[in-house]
Amino acid sequence: MFPSSLFRIQNTPLYRKAVVGSRSLSSCNTNKTRLGLTPTLRNIIETEATGTEVTISGWIKSVRVQKRIAFAEVSDGSTLRGIQIIMNDPQIAAGLSTGCSVEIKGILASSPGREQSKEIQANSIYIIGNADPETYPLQKKRHSMEFLREIGNIRPRSQTISAVTRLRDRAETGLHKFFHENEFVRIHTPAITANDCEGGGEAFQLATPGSKIPESDFFGRKVNLTVSGQLHLEVYANAFKRVYNFNQSFRAEPSQTGRHLSEFWMVEAECAFVRKLALLLEVEEQMIRSTTQYLVDNAGSDLEFFSQKNEPLAKLVQRLTDRKPYAQITYTEAIDILQNADPLQKFAFKPEWGQGLQSEHERYLAAKHFDGPVFVTDYPAEIKPFYMLPNPDGKTVACMDLLVPGPCELLGGSLREHNLERLQTSIKAHGIDENSLDWYTSLRRYGTTPHGGFGMGFERYIQMVTGLENIRDIIPFPRYAGKCLC
Amino acid sequence: MFPSSLFRIQNTPLYRKAVVGSRSLSSCNTNKTRLGLTPTLRNIIETEATGTEVTISGWIKSVRVQKRIAFAEVSDGSTLRGIQIIMNDPQIAAGLSTGCSVEIKGILASSPGREQSKEIQANSIYIIGNADPETYPLQKKRHSMEFLREIGNIRPRSQTISAVTRLRDRAETGLHKFFHENEFVRIHTPAITANDCEGGGEAFQLATPGSKIPESDFFGRKVNLTVSGQLHLEVYANAFKRVYNFNQSFRAEPSQTGRHLSEFWMVEAECAFVRKLALLLEVEEQMIRSTTQYLVDNAGSDLEFFSQKNEPLAKLVQRLTDRKPYAQITYTEAIDILQNADPLQKFAFKPEWGQGLQSEHERYLAAKHFDGPVFVTDYPAEIKPFYMLPNPDGKTVACMDLLVPGPCELLGGSLREHNLERLQTSIKAHGIDENSLDWYTSLRRYGTTPHGGFGMGFERYIQMVTGLENIRDIIPFPRYAGKCLC
Repeated sequence: MFPSSLFRIQNTPLYRKAVVGSRSLSSCNTNKTRLGLTPTLRNIIETEATGTEVTISGWIKSVRVQKRIAFAEVSDGSTLRGIQIIMNDPQIAAGLSTGCSVEIKGILASSPGREQSKEIQANSIYIIGNADPETYPLQKKRHSMEFLREIGNIRPRSQTISAVTRLRDRAETGLHKFFHENEFVRIHTPAITANDCEGGGEAFQLATPGSKIPESDFFGRKVNLTVSGQLHLEVYANAFKRVYNFNQSFRAEPSQTGRHLSEFWMVEAECAFVRKLALLLEVEEQMIRSTTQYLVDNAGSDLEFFSQKNEPLAKLVQRLTDRKPYAQITYTEAIDILQNADPLQKFAFKPEWGQGLQSEHERYLAAKHFDGPVFVTDYPAEIKPFYMLPNPDGKTVACMDLLVPGPCELLGGSLREHNLERLQTSIKAHGIDENSLDWYTSLRRYGTTPHGGFGMGFERYIQMVTGLENIRDIIPFPRYAGKCLC
Repeated sequence: MFPSSLFRIQNTPLYRKAVVGSRSLSSCNTNKTRLGLTPTLRNIIETEATGTEVTISGWIKSVRVQKRIAFAEVSDGSTLRGIQIIMNDPQIAAGLSTGCSVEIKGILASSPGREQSKEIQANSIYIIGNADPETYPLQKKRHSMEFLREIGNIRPRSQTISAVTRLRDRAETGLHKFFHENEFVRIHTPAITANDCEGGGEAFQLATPGSKIPESDFFGRKVNLTVSGQLHLEVYANAFKRVYNFNQSFRAEPSQTGRHLSEFWMVEAECAFVRKLALLLEVEEQMIRSTTQYLVDNAGSDLEFFSQKNEPLAKLVQRLTDRKPYAQITYTEAIDILQNADPLQKFAFKPEWGQGLQSEHERYLAAKHFDGPVFVTDYPAEIKPFYMLPNPDGKTVACMDLLVPGPCELLGGSLREHNLERLQTSIKAHGIDENSLDWYTSLRRYGTTPHGGFGMGFERYIQMVTGLENIRDIIPFPRYAGKCLC
C-alpha cells in the first residue's frame, strides 16, 4: 500500500542511524517499521541476519557481572523473552541495574539452545534513565499477582502482564478479522445511555457538578453508563444486517471476588434475518474458534507461556480450535445432568428447573461433565430478560449461554422478539416503562425481521486462554468496588 | 486460515438455500460469508455471475408500479446504492412499500449504465416485516440532517448515515492496520478514572445511587469519566515502547454548537525513546495518509458520495494521500501570518503571541492560507498542559496541533517531560495536587525515556473526509448537552 519512496526520512532520530546504516531498506520486513521509529526486538530478531550491527532500546530485566564478562537481559515488550546482551568488557556494564532504560549498539549473534534464538555482543551501552536498585519494585524473581496489582504502573513490564497485554491486542485483532470476513459492520455504541438494558439496577449514574448546566440536568434526564450495547446494536442491525461492537461496559457490582470488574470490554453482535438459534451458535462457535486460532498463529509463545505447565489449559486451547463442534445441550438437559451428578458432587444450591444455574453448576458442566466448551440453550422464560424470543413450548426462550472451563459463563445470547405486540406485552409483564423504550420497540413497526445476537466478555475470553484466576490481572487498569487507583 | 471442510453447515437457515444451491463453495469469495449467514448485496454483486439464481434480503427503499412492470430498490447497508429489482409481473409487488423488510428470489442480471452494475429479475418476493406508508418516516426524497437526527433509530437506513457508518468501520480498520504495521500495541485504557488529564473541569463524575456501597464511596474516592487516555498510555509505553488506544472520551461541554460531543472516540498513541518532535509529526502524518488511502482503496464509493459535488473536499482527500509532506510552521510563524493576513480578513479576536489560536485563526490557516493540512508547532508553555516538554528557548514547548480544512483542529500532541524533578516543578506550577499523580510521575524514577505522543478525534477525522458540518451526524448515537435520546 505504501510505495517505497514514501519511506523518506524527514529526520534522523538519534536511535535510528546505526540500524539503518547497516542494512538496505529492501532487506527490511516491509510490513514493519516504515517510519523513523526504532525497530522492536521482535522485528530485529525475526528480520536481521546474525553479524549485523544493530541498535536496540529497551529496559534492563537483569544484570550479571563476572570477572571477565557481563550479561544483561533487555526487553521492550515486543517478545515474551528479552534478548541476552553479552559484554566481553565488563566495564561497559557499569551503572547498569534492573529497570534502567538503555540504548545498546552491538552485533547480532545466534544463541542456539537458549530461550531466545539470538543475542547481542554489545559494543556500547548508553543508560538513558536510571532505576534505583534499592526501590525498583520489579525484580527478576517471581512476584505474586497480588503484589503486581499493587505496582500497577510498573507491572506491564512483568512477563505475565506483558504476555496478557499482547494477547489482548492479538485477540482483538482476531475478532475484528472474523467479523469483517463475515461482513459485519463495526458500530460504536454509546457509553452514556438513558437505557438500562438488563434492568439489574447496577448501572453507574452520571453527575456533572462542575458544569454550568444544573447537576441532574446536563442531558435533561437521568443517564447511566451502559451495561450492554445490545439494544443500540439492534437499531443498526435493522439497516446493516450484521453489526458488532467492541466496547466498554460498566456494572456497579459490589462483589469483591476476582470474577467481576466495574468496567470491562465486551464484543457484542446482532444479525438480522436470522430465524434459527443454531445459526447464532454457529457464528459464536466460529468466532471463538477463529480468534483462538489467530492467537495460536500470531501469539503462540504467549499462549504457551501460560499453558506449558498447565496441561488442562493446553488441552482446552486445542479443543477450542479443533473442528469438532462444541457440545450443546438444553437447559432442561443440563438440569437433568446436574440432578444426576456423581453423588460425591455436593452442590451448595440444589439444581432445580426454573432456577438460574449457579456458578458451581456451570463449573461442573464445563470443567467436569463436558471438560470443554458447552452451549446450554432454551432457558426458562421467567429468568431471562424481556427481549428474548419465546419458544413454541410457551415455557422457554430461544437463548444460549456458552460455558467453558475457567471463567464458566463466557458468552450469552438469544433470538430477539421481533413482533411489536408480543414485545410490548413482554415489556409490560417485566414491569418496565414502555415509553422509555419507544425508540427500540418502534423498530418492529418498520420492516422488522427475525434476528438475534450475543455478547462475549473480552476479559473472560482472555482469562480462559491464559488460565489466570483473577480477572483483575487481565485488564490494564482494573476498576472494582473500592479500587480506582489512577 | 479456515480449512474448507470447516464450512460445514450445521443447519440450513431459511435464507441460505437458494444461493448455496446455485453455486459451488469453491466459486465463493473465500473471504466472505463462510457461515450459514445470507451473503450481503455487496458480496452478491461482487462475486456472483449474471444469470445466477440468488436470494437476497434487505429493506425496500422505493417502489414504482407500472401497468406491465414494477421496480423496487432494495438495500441492506452493504453498498452505497441499493440494487434494482425488476418485477415483470407487477402483481408480485403487491403490498410492497418503502421500509418493508423482504426476501427476494430472482436471477442476477447486468445493469449497464445504471448506478449499480447489477439488478435482479425477481421471481418471488416475500414480505417479512411491513412498514406503514402513512407513518414510515424515511422517504425516497432528500431529508435534512436535522430531520434525520430526530429519527435516530431509522436514520442508519438513510444514504448519508449509511455511508458515514461504513466509513467509520473502514477508517477504524485502517487505523489498526497502520499501528500494527508499525509495531504499536493496542492498550485498552480505562473510561473510569481518578485523573483529569487536561484539568479542564469538564469531566463527568460518577454516582452509584442504587449500590449497596455508599454513593460517593463505591471506589473509595471521587472518580470521573476519562477526558484522555494519555497518562495511562504512558504507563504502557514504558514497557511496550509504542502503544495506542481507540477509546471513548467524555467532556461535560455545555456548548450547543455542532462542533462538540459529550462522548466521542479518540485514537491516542505514545512512543518511548523518541527525542525529536519531527519524528512524531512523521508518525501522525503517515497515520492520516495511510488511513485515508485505506478508505480510498476500501470505501471509495462512500468517499465519492460526499466529494462528488464538493470539489474542495475531493482536493483535500487527494492532498491527504499524496506524497507531498504536510505544511509545517511554528506557532510564532502562525501568529506572524495571522497578523499580516489580508486586511479584508477581519478577525473577531486579534492574533497575539501568548494567546491561544481561536477557531477563526485556525480556519484561516488551514482553509485559506495553506488550503490543506498544516502542523503548527511550539506553542507558548503558558497555554499548554503541565506534561509537555519545554523547548530550549524557555518560552515554548515541543508540541503540535494539526489543522485541517473542515474540523480545523484534528490532532494534538507533544513530547512529554521525562525528567522527574522538572515534571514535579511543572505540576506544582500548574497548581495540581502532586500526590494524585504519584503513579504517573514515578514512571520517571524507573528507566524514564524521552517520549511523546498525540491524540486524534475520530469523529473529527470522519468529519474531515465527509465534509459534514455537524459532528452529531458522524456518531451513531450523539450525546450532547440536553440530548441523550436512548
